[in-house]
Amino acid sequence: MSITVNKICIIGTGLIGGSLALGLKKAKFCEHITGCGRSEDTLKKAMELDVIDSYEMDMAKAVSGADIVVVSVPLGAIRSVFEKIRPGLGETTVVTDAGSAKQCVIREANEIFPSKHYFIAGHPIAGTEKSGVTAAFDNLFENRKVILTPDENTDKTALALIEIMWQSVGAEVEFMSAEHHDLVLAGTSHLPHLLAFGLVDCLNNLDDVDEVFKYAAGGFHDFTRIASSDPDMWRDICLGNRDEVMSMMRRFKQEMENIYRALEDNDGDKLKTIFSRSKKIRDLFCEKNS
Amino acid sequence: MSITVNKICIIGTGLIGGSLALGLKKAKFCEHITGCGRSEDTLKKAMELDVIDSYEMDMAKAVSGADIVVVSVPLGAIRSVFEKIRPGLGETTVVTDAGSAKQCVIREANEIFPSKHYFIAGHPIAGTEKSGVTAAFDNLFENRKVILTPDENTDKTALALIEIMWQSVGAEVEFMSAEHHDLVLAGTSHLPHLLAFGLVDCLNNLDDVDEVFKYAAGGFHDFTRIASSDPDMWRDICLGNRDEVMSMMRRFKQEMENIYRALEDNDGDKLKTIFSRSKKIRDLFCEKNS
Repeated sequence: MSITVNKICIIGTGLIGGSLALGLKKAKFCEHITGCGRSEDTLKKAMELDVIDSYEMDMAKAVSGADIVVVSVPLGAIRSVFEKIRPGLGETTVVTDAGSAKQCVIREANEIFPSKHYFIAGHPIAGTEKSGVTAAFDNLFENRKVILTPDENTDKTALALIEIMWQSVGAEVEFMSAEHHDLVLAGTSHLPHLLAFGLVDCLNNLDDVDEVFKYAAGGFHDFTRIASSDPDMWRDICLGNRDEVMSMMRRFKQEMENIYRALEDNDGDKLKTIFSRSKKIRDLFCEKNS
Repeated sequence: MSITVNKICIIGTGLIGGSLALGLKKAKFCEHITGCGRSEDTLKKAMELDVIDSYEMDMAKAVSGADIVVVSVPLGAIRSVFEKIRPGLGETTVVTDAGSAKQCVIREANEIFPSKHYFIAGHPIAGTEKSGVTAAFDNLFENRKVILTPDENTDKTALALIEIMWQSVGAEVEFMSAEHHDLVLAGTSHLPHLLAFGLVDCLNNLDDVDEVFKYAAGGFHDFTRIASSDPDMWRDICLGNRDEVMSMMRRFKQEMENIYRALEDNDGDKLKTIFSRSKKIRDLFCEKNS
């Protein structure tokens, strides 16, 4: 298969959009990358940093003539972006996104885009607690997983194009249903973020808060790293994947109640069983992923 | 003040005891370090690695003639160690420990040691998720906090000796009540460990567990690092600091119920307020500690 990609439009040139642009340039995947977004300052910064080749504030104009449009804005802004780009989309333009929840984005795409337009829902499992174009780097996606969530109606050619795009920046592309994606991510990403935000907030309500954080060691530092993530982005993700997140929170609550009862009963064996099981799984997972 | 420390006996030459021994040797703080513990293999390994100068399996013999005895065994084993070393303690031997909960250790010391013996309760806020003498290194305590929890009956000279010992390996020594220590550590260390163990165990109960962990990214990796900690040690810590840990778990449960209600109500503003507050606190704390 030989492909020629002329223009890619990236809407939202933050950490994800900016890093993708840098990676695509490095891979010489396309001729031209146009940036688009709400903030002209960000787009000017992206130009300065050679992240994009040009920018355009008007979304319909920005996507005009693009082979691929990548929407990498916070989940809560995706609907409005879809509405704004719709008039500018060409017959063969493929639209994809990078949102952390997929069922909600697919619902919106189905509502807004006429059926003849291609939409491929995607989620790069990458990122740091930092955000913004200044945090972008060209190998953010190298050896990272990107999940695409096609269904039986998805156009195969459009799907292949987005797969090749992500592969060109070093990502490993995998496919699953949007439902399964949302469940898995609720457990491995959304719930952990809520626990980290919740823990810091909970300790903040103790007296002598400075005191408390002063004695926090390296383990706490790592554990709460994700509590430094962008609040807007995480509000949107939690609301976007609300049902799965709430279901995972209920499961976790039961788990903690189980541990609480073991403490209440001074049941050291039960605690050790839980801790040993977790350590084993976590060590195994790390071995595989390191 | 000029001090000459001849012999130090370290009971439990794991990560903490072993690293302390290596640090004390590097600082030339004493003439001789004797190791003691349940496992002769570990002590032989500690000899091989030049962590200790000699070893002795009999605890009363091991502490005989020591100026300082450092008990760095899991909390659950401290009582039995105190009982075993008691007959060997000299008139001026100072005993200290490295346990992660202090009220329970002090209760045991008060029960077991005759009043004429000095006991200084201590807790080095250092460590990694690794354990054992092979993980020990000489600068583990450099710029790390060590908390000593004296009360009005504590011998001032004994306290100063333990303070100087920790300072000699680069630690910053601070003082607080055992009650306050246990509350602070329940929040910044014990609860986070329970949440990490609990999260991994909770995800382990989902179907397709390999699948789940396969898509876990860097954030999850950092968040769950402490779930690779030693299960015996953490069972002992949780039981040792049971009341404070349970109280912190109840606080955290309320926090999570608050977040759950915000999701139920689709209350994005409330979620953003909590996330922003946490991010601000966490960023501030990191700035101070980096």
